[in-house]
Amino acid sequence: MHLKAFEIMKSNGEIPCNIKFMIEGEEEVGSSNLEPFVASHKEKLACDTILISDTGMISNTTPSITTGLRGLSYVEVEVTGPNRDLHSGLYGGAVANPLNVLAKMVASLHDDNGQITVEGFYDGVEIVSTEERALMAKAPFSQEEFKESIGIGDVWGEEGYSTPERTSIRPTLDVNGMWGGYTGEGAKTVIPSKAYAKISMRLVPGQNPEAITEKFIKHFKAIAPDSVAINVTPHHGGLPYVTHTTNPAYQAASKAYQKTFGKAALPVRSGGSIPIVALFEQQLGAKSILMGFGLDSDAIHSPNEHYGVFNYFKGIETIPYFYENYAKQK
Amino acid sequence: MHLKAFEIMKSNGEIPCNIKFMIEGEEEVGSSNLEPFVASHKEKLACDTILISDTGMISNTTPSITTGLRGLSYVEVEVTGPNRDLHSGLYGGAVANPLNVLAKMVASLHDDNGQITVEGFYDGVEIVSTEERALMAKAPFSQEEFKESIGIGDVWGEEGYSTPERTSIRPTLDVNGMWGGYTGEGAKTVIPSKAYAKISMRLVPGQNPEAITEKFIKHFKAIAPDSVAINVTPHHGGLPYVTHTTNPAYQAASKAYQKTFGKAALPVRSGGSIPIVALFEQQLGAKSILMGFGLDSDAIHSPNEHYGVFNYFKGIETIPYFYENYAKQK
Repeated sequence: MHLKAFEIMKSNGEIPCNIKFMIEGEEEVGSSNLEPFVASHKEKLACDTILISDTGMISNTTPSITTGLRGLSYVEVEVTGPNRDLHSGLYGGAVANPLNVLAKMVASLHDDNGQITVEGFYDGVEIVSTEERALMAKAPFSQEEFKESIGIGDVWGEEGYSTPERTSIRPTLDVNGMWGGYTGEGAKTVIPSKAYAKISMRLVPGQNPEAITEKFIKHFKAIAPDSVAINVTPHHGGLPYVTHTTNPAYQAASKAYQKTFGKAALPVRSGGSIPIVALFEQQLGAKSILMGFGLDSDAIHSPNEHYGVFNYFKGIETIPYFYENYAKQK
Repeated sequence: MHLKAFEIMKSNGEIPCNIKFMIEGEEEVGSSNLEPFVASHKEKLACDTILISDTGMISNTTPSITTGLRGLSYVEVEVTGPNRDLHSGLYGGAVANPLNVLAKMVASLHDDNGQITVEGFYDGVEIVSTEERALMAKAPFSQEEFKESIGIGDVWGEEGYSTPERTSIRPTLDVNGMWGGYTGEGAKTVIPSKAYAKISMRLVPGQNPEAITEKFIKHFKAIAPDSVAINVTPHHGGLPYVTHTTNPAYQAASKAYQKTFGKAALPVRSGGSIPIVALFEQQLGAKSILMGFGLDSDAIHSPNEHYGVFNYFKGIETIPYFYENYAKQK
């Protein structure tokens, strides 16, 4: 079946549009070479639209196109107390323990409603309209299945938003790693000199990663007690992104799904970040269309990450129709 | 000079009392074989008093004898959220992050006055009299030198108590280790499945380690949100201990210091734990006298731990007088 799609192109004796490939292998480590590469190859990379397959869809029977991505601000914090590790018997009770202090500081970054307390964090956040939220709510979603799929007793998040909204249209703050003191087998009674955490914030349209990183650093230093010293190192970030459904490339993609899945794709916003999408828009002035065929159950970034054969072939089948539809529109 | 002390014993042609040695090398890993060993060798170990050199003194010009020790309760906690590590973009905002949850739970273990919030934690704590606190306050102590010696901007601790009191007559709670998620170089956007902490509580007379461990487990499970599962593993503990200054062995030791340092030793309570002391009392019915010659500046359990030659020889010199004095009293 999927070969038919290639036959469309073959029957014309040519592909219906020019295609340029750009392969990027650094995204998970911050893509530090990507921006200079794109900036110095603008002419070669010039194009009408960009197709990226790095997203998922709702299910194998409900195709979807990702129209929004969250941005990212990522920092590493270091809390220093005493100038060396101390014996918790001799010093315990009189010296601020960097791990206890870091725990308290991290705890204070969310209020009781699950909102982030970093000063100015929500400034400029694009409020999604009631209409769009109602549309989003039409996508099939079962809270029970969600909980079961990852084995949790209860969900958690910002008051006033549904689980799908919490992972897409709202910004977040998560500790991605934390460490300090004795972490080996058994017991050691130490007050560590230092405690560390890696903290990332997912951002939504209206938020700028650099501004958020600055706000975080200022806030984190402001809430630290005098008993410790704070150092914050920013890691890579990424801008949030939106493609509207009126975009011609979106329309071409939508028709392609109609052809191969027999139903229209739903526009959805993803909670993940693909920094290259915002970068392409800045540097090349072109919007990206995100046709991805993965599923939430693929366990990406987790043990046993996988990708279905059905999805692999369905992508091969659908994408050529996108080329054809988009070429016709031009 | 120190050889003179041995000459005292030599001149009699014998040592003034019988001495039994017991060498223990497992204390830092919980002394799991000690209790059965002592229990099964009661007859062989039977004695009038016990001498242990595992403590410090105020300074090389202000000798002191440790009369009190804090006990210990040590637990390891495991907070489990989702059944696998998750991508923070796709799930962030809707799933309770075990590291954020653990930080919040740890933060809640102290109130704003630096008191421990574990229910019933202070039940039965022996309140030290105003007179004894006044006596303790006579020991030389400089808050500025304390801060400088460990490089901290400010002290921290329970409201209403001085720094020496916080490390000796009051119980504490410290995180000795904490870990979870990605702790390597750079950034990884993961919501970890699990977060861990090693937490120890120093106890004072009136508190029982097993009861405190039980109270901690009950409290920690009670404050956990439904979004996570909690597992607590108890590690080794130890009873708090006090020897009164009216004890004959204390008197014998005090006179020995008078002889070799030219001044009376001050009785002090230490913040550390030496579980064997309480164990000996339970099993052998004998009190221990703690003649230690180390200094706070020895950096024990820290890099560059050391022990002064002066202190080494002063111990060799002083201890034989203790044997002599104690034998005379009997």
